[in-house]
Amino acid sequence: MALMPFIEEADASPEVKAVYEDIKSTRKVDWINNFWKVLANDPATLKRTWEDLKQVMGPGTLDPVVKEMLYLAVSVTNNCEYCIVSHTAAARKAGMNDAMLAELVSVVGMANATNRMVNAYRVEPDERLVKAATGGKKK
Amino acid sequence: MALMPFIEEADASPEVKAVYEDIKSTRKVDWINNFWKVLANDPATLKRTWEDLKQVMGPGTLDPVVKEMLYLAVSVTNNCEYCIVSHTAAARKAGMNDAMLAELVSVVGMANATNRMVNAYRVEPDERLVKAATGGKKK
Amino acid sequence: MALMPFIEEADASPEVKAVYEDIKSTRKVDWINNFWKVLANDPATLKRTWEDLKQVMGPGTLDPVVKEMLYLAVSVTNNCEYCIVSHTAAARKAGMNDAMLAELVSVVGMANATNRMVNAYRVEPDERLVKAATGGKKK
Amino acid sequence: MALMPFIEEADASPEVKAVYEDIKSTRKVDWINNFWKVLANDPATLKRTWEDLKQVMGPGTLDPVVKEMLYLAVSVTNNCEYCIVSHTAAARKAGMNDAMLAELVSVVGMANATNRMVNAYRVEPDERLVKAATGGKKK
Amino acid sequence: MALMPFIEEADASPEVKAVYEDIKSTRKVDWINNFWKVLANDPATLKRTWEDLKQVMGPGTLDPVVKEMLYLAVSVTNNCEYCIVSHTAAARKAGMNDAMLAELVSVVGMANATNRMVNAYRVEPDERLVKAATGGKKK
Amino acid sequence: MALMPFIEEADASPEVKAVYEDIKSTRKVDWINNFWKVLANDPATLKRTWEDLKQVMGPGTLDPVVKEMLYLAVSVTNNCEYCIVSHTAAARKAGMNDAMLAELVSVVGMANATNRMVNAYRVEPDERLVKAATGGKKK
Repeated sequence: MALMPFIEEADASPEVKAVYEDIKSTRKVDWINNFWKVLANDPATLKRTWEDLKQVMGPGTLDPVVKEMLYLAVSVTNNCEYCIVSHTAAARKAGMNDAMLAELVSVVGMANATNRMVNAYRVEPDERLVKAATGGKKK
Repeated sequence: MALMPFIEEADASPEVKAVYEDIKSTRKVDWINNFWKVLANDPATLKRTWEDLKQVMGPGTLDPVVKEMLYLAVSVTNNCEYCIVSHTAAARKAGMNDAMLAELVSVVGMANATNRMVNAYRVEPDERLVKAATGGKKK
Repeated sequence: MALMPFIEEADASPEVKAVYEDIKSTRKVDWINNFWKVLANDPATLKRTWEDLKQVMGPGTLDPVVKEMLYLAVSVTNNCEYCIVSHTAAARKAGMNDAMLAELVSVVGMANATNRMVNAYRVEPDERLVKAATGGKKK
Repeated sequence: MALMPFIEEADASPEVKAVYEDIKSTRKVDWINNFWKVLANDPATLKRTWEDLKQVMGPGTLDPVVKEMLYLAVSVTNNCEYCIVSHTAAARKAGMNDAMLAELVSVVGMANATNRMVNAYRVEPDERLVKAATGGKKK
Repeated sequence: MALMPFIEEADASPEVKAVYEDIKSTRKVDWINNFWKVLANDPATLKRTWEDLKQVMGPGTLDPVVKEMLYLAVSVTNNCEYCIVSHTAAARKAGMNDAMLAELVSVVGMANATNRMVNAYRVEPDERLVKAATGGKKK
Repeated sequence: MALMPFIEEADASPEVKAVYEDIKSTRKVDWINNFWKVLANDPATLKRTWEDLKQVMGPGTLDPVVKEMLYLAVSVTNNCEYCIVSHTAAARKAGMNDAMLAELVSVVGMANATNRMVNAYRVEPDERLVKAATGGKKK
């Protein structure tokens, strides 16, 4: 029940079309998914969001499949259906198999559980853990 | 301001002590952090939570550093201070460096943003993405 | 798939009917939406919730469209479908146009992202910001 | 207990310094707050986040104080302390007074409550509300 | 670091004082806790919130200790420190002992975990469970 | 649109079948609900999750209906549809009637509201409440 119309490629303004073309060539796909078609109602937001995503999810230190799995872990925690579907698809494309997905789901479940167990008792971080977390940086 | 006392190793019952010893030998550390010391007020929960964590975070398909980074991504999304500190520390120990952490933070931020952009417009998953997400499994 | 039946106007008790009439006259509408029809299974909760909403969303310092947009920003963050739909409708009725909605979505996305970036690094508030946030009040 | 060091202006690389200068001139302030100093450990993320924020929170259709209040409403919902403090300060600077803040808090509280009441009974959006929410757009 | 001043009993207006007195007599305590002292900056919100809480947490079908434990379970899930502390205190006063708290923490952890496991796989409710959830009500 | 296939009883491996049988005999039901059928794609996770749930929701200090209501309160806060449906059903089976459900919904709504009101003003816990919350334990 999308609350804004989808801007199809055929109807796109040159500004939107340019982003669509970049999405397709960067991802090596021949179609545009609904998220971008809805964002295209506001071309500046479409462009900014795509540029951000391209930078954030692009080549870096982490393996692409790890980035997609991190994205998925957040989306599962927040229960965003579209994002879970699209990033499960993207993670699979990047190499995630069923066993890896099952491990991700176990870790996400466990983290959501222990986050609350810690909350309940107001446990303060151990000084040794704080030190280790900073990686030895001066604070 | 922990709301329950810490059960120190010296004061631990045999049941609690056995879990503490397993934590130390499994993790190859010589001390017990506060989370376990608080859970130890209820030995059955301590044992169950540790057994779960050992299984979930133990050897599997995913690299240990990836598991720790998934745990951290969830904890950052939920804003659990203790968990952020302890799993940043654990991820560093497993090999996460500053560049990897910065990428994780960028991905987690981006996912939390786009999750809401999708929510706002009630975008439904593209049929092609649903199919790809199932990995070709029969449904 | 509502888990409780809708109490239609025709079937409403006098107590429920009185609330329904107040909703219709306050909002200048001639129908009752599903949220109230479900709450009406417990007349006391229906009445309390409506009285609260009438006070909170009624005349005050903030423009009605701003109040509806704040309501929407929260609902988008929490991913409550019914609330997103109903408060997008209410905000539009109060004057929100497509451009304003697009800006709201961008702000909500950005806030959800930076909230987590701050969480991850455990950044403490600058003393100058704390002071400014109190508006110069004694603390 | 920030987990990464603050990059002070005096120690900033030219790339970081350029962003700092843009922050100061855009906001007409003479200092840099901790959020940016932590992000500066990764100059590309600093630059991207600042450019995004400048666009999203910059001149548009919504009044600056409304944008800051939307940011604050999200941050309160997510319980991000740094963000609540910094955006309460920013909203005050943009014109929010105590009465406006009190109304924001009431709206945010009310939205968080009714979001869950709707969740509990799985209320589906009324067709008339869906139509109104789309603003008459074709779907 | 409360962002608004506390309105102490000695400085309270008659309107605020009346609410304070009702809180003290209803709860049979001789002091006012910080939550109310901050809300008192906006007397209408103080009065509305207290009246709501008195109704919601007052005599009904559920045992007072159960109501306090439900309040605590939500607060732990949302990680609201003040609320966790104050409702742990209230639940203890109403009869919650250490064993009951430990069970609550285990249930809250488990629920937060399985909520995400379900999210990840987009499991749809079984028709039989939907039916049972409605309690045999017509839908 | 489950993203993984359901493992039906007829197709289950001996390891999965053993868990299914234990679920049925423990709960005195003659069928398996979808959650378990999806988890069964990873037998180790199925077994671990079921063993945990059996322990956490099994006989203890709290009444079974209270445990189910706590589970439901968390699921409503997180907006997990499957969990809301299944634990509303389970709570009804354990004795929750409409009036109890209505009270639960009111408490969950109220807690979600006041959690944010406290967040907004950064209210610190009163020393007396911290003391009461610890139940007189040494800290």
